[in-house]
Amino acid sequence: MTILKNRIEALKKSFSKGLDGYIVADGTNLLYLTGFDGGVRLLVAEDIESIFYVQGVNYEAAKEEAKDCKIELVKRGEDINLKIAKEIERLKLKNVGFDTLDVSIYLKLKKAWNSTELQPHSDLIWELRKVKDETELKYIKKAAEMTSEGAKIASETIKPEVREFEVAAEIEYAMRKLGSDGVAFDSIVVSGVRSAFPHGGCTDKKIQKGDLVVVDIGAKFKYYRADLTRTFVAGKPSAKQTKIYEVVKNAQEKAFENLKAGASGNEIDAIARRIIEKEGYGEYFVHSLGHGVGLEVHESPVLSPESKDVLKPGNVVTVEPGIYIIGFGGFRVEDTVLVEKSKGEKLTKASYTLEAE
Amino acid sequence: MTILKNRIEALKKSFSKGLDGYIVADGTNLLYLTGFDGGVRLLVAEDIESIFYVQGVNYEAAKEEAKDCKIELVKRGEDINLKIAKEIERLKLKNVGFDTLDVSIYLKLKKAWNSTELQPHSDLIWELRKVKDETELKYIKKAAEMTSEGAKIASETIKPEVREFEVAAEIEYAMRKLGSDGVAFDSIVVSGVRSAFPHGGCTDKKIQKGDLVVVDIGAKFKYYRADLTRTFVAGKPSAKQTKIYEVVKNAQEKAFENLKAGASGNEIDAIARRIIEKEGYGEYFVHSLGHGVGLEVHESPVLSPESKDVLKPGNVVTVEPGIYIIGFGGFRVEDTVLVEKSKGEKLTKASYTLEAE
Repeated sequence: MTILKNRIEALKKSFSKGLDGYIVADGTNLLYLTGFDGGVRLLVAEDIESIFYVQGVNYEAAKEEAKDCKIELVKRGEDINLKIAKEIERLKLKNVGFDTLDVSIYLKLKKAWNSTELQPHSDLIWELRKVKDETELKYIKKAAEMTSEGAKIASETIKPEVREFEVAAEIEYAMRKLGSDGVAFDSIVVSGVRSAFPHGGCTDKKIQKGDLVVVDIGAKFKYYRADLTRTFVAGKPSAKQTKIYEVVKNAQEKAFENLKAGASGNEIDAIARRIIEKEGYGEYFVHSLGHGVGLEVHESPVLSPESKDVLKPGNVVTVEPGIYIIGFGGFRVEDTVLVEKSKGEKLTKASYTLEAE
Repeated sequence: MTILKNRIEALKKSFSKGLDGYIVADGTNLLYLTGFDGGVRLLVAEDIESIFYVQGVNYEAAKEEAKDCKIELVKRGEDINLKIAKEIERLKLKNVGFDTLDVSIYLKLKKAWNSTELQPHSDLIWELRKVKDETELKYIKKAAEMTSEGAKIASETIKPEVREFEVAAEIEYAMRKLGSDGVAFDSIVVSGVRSAFPHGGCTDKKIQKGDLVVVDIGAKFKYYRADLTRTFVAGKPSAKQTKIYEVVKNAQEKAFENLKAGASGNEIDAIARRIIEKEGYGEYFVHSLGHGVGLEVHESPVLSPESKDVLKPGNVVTVEPGIYIIGFGGFRVEDTVLVEKSKGEKLTKASYTLEAE
């Protein structure tokens, strides 16, 4: 059985909650279950071959590249929701789950049926997606390698008078030349006081001597992503910059050392947060410690004070504490880490030197 | 009044359908109405200053960069949906519209209220977003300029033995160096028989002499996008390649010549489709003629056989007929076009020469 058929079978097994069918509508979930980017819906039910609904524009490609399902053409002008409603009636499914549907579509489907229940159950696919299989890990590792190279380029490129977007250009170009399928998310290269904005983006500002520069980047390989942040100083770091940076770096290292299967998302977050709080910077750590990475850059499981996740082998998460002081600047150190039975493995590997080369 | 306040006021004016409040939840709509990328919800109601809900991670940035709303912090652990439900009760709103909500959130909100109606109304914001204002046009034109330069680079880079992703690397690098904020969508550089897949992506395949190469690219500038496709042959085009290409180019030109305010989306599509059908390639034109472009790469209005859109001045749409012959290859020519009162204006400008330089 192929990996993809395995995934669909695993989804069916999770139907124990009384479901007899499932509509997949989310683009990334469709990609996860079929291996093909560009379908509209997937209908999964107990005793049938899954039906993958694809529009004309992608029909020929799907026939060639999505081998594990029955491919069904959605014709011009055909309403996919009514089409699937009809198929579900024909199959006499009584209790259908779905991952995500627009409210107006949900209301339309409810109206189309007399005796079929329809319930949101995105949790079922997330339970699968958050544990990566060998193929997924191979791709994430490859993306992580390219991302690590991007960090090296960042360190070499950051200099006074260079613009933020010029640094991003060099990083992205280097990752692309290594075979990256584009970026995992919009690169962040944010310098000076705006580095205190965790999602500060990337502007045409010229980097100034002594600026903090937060570089948050990721490559993508066969749809899988990696995520890494390094903080640099353009020039010699000041004593204050060095001191705060050491706090963040230490928080990241200690959280990483404790990462393993069985640890809970809130307890790993607390390890980093306590270190930062103890040094008096607690109020400046304004986000969660980390998030899952895979086909999306933010997914399950989560490392945060509110997280209820317990880590499992095969989870891939970021570990990324930060300190952001308005008017001064920001610091963040982030790696993408694979959770193993008794330890974590850093997939991104780049120097932690604060001073840009 | 600022452009952004204008947009929010225009949304309020469209409340005529009996609404007295509106929840904005879609990330792009939030960006459109607030100018800030990274909020969670916006609550708009008749007689209040709009409330922009932002999490801690983006709170300081929003306070500095989103000046046209009241910024409300969503604290750690706080449920944004219950928070907004409470505010709506306090304001005694009776009939609240929204753009998009996950079904589970919709059901939760319905449950939280006794006497407030909740209805999907994404149409209201789309009515606004599909007519671009001066600022938006300035950004789209800038993105289109960079994209046009990307097409030039494509023509110079495509050669036998060069890999598809290497061509993408050069295009994206050139656009970035011009100040593009990354790509408008994953670049497509697809060659040989796979060029017959309209969304064939970009692989590590080496381009072969005589290959058709479809290049579909876009730059992004201040969140606004452009979209352009050119088809190249690596080497001397064959008679058959040239003949089919001319059909596509002619279909695009004729559709473009008829594009103006008042024309309907289906009639413009039909002009291109009839030309392709007349030459015997009708079954190979497997997608719509075009789509709106702006903050997203696929938006309203649509040029297709099913479209009910009537074009207005300020619409920005792609015009992109294609012919895709399985086992032979694909052809597409696309420009991003501004709809004006009595004509269209091509915003992307690049050579239509089939033979790569």
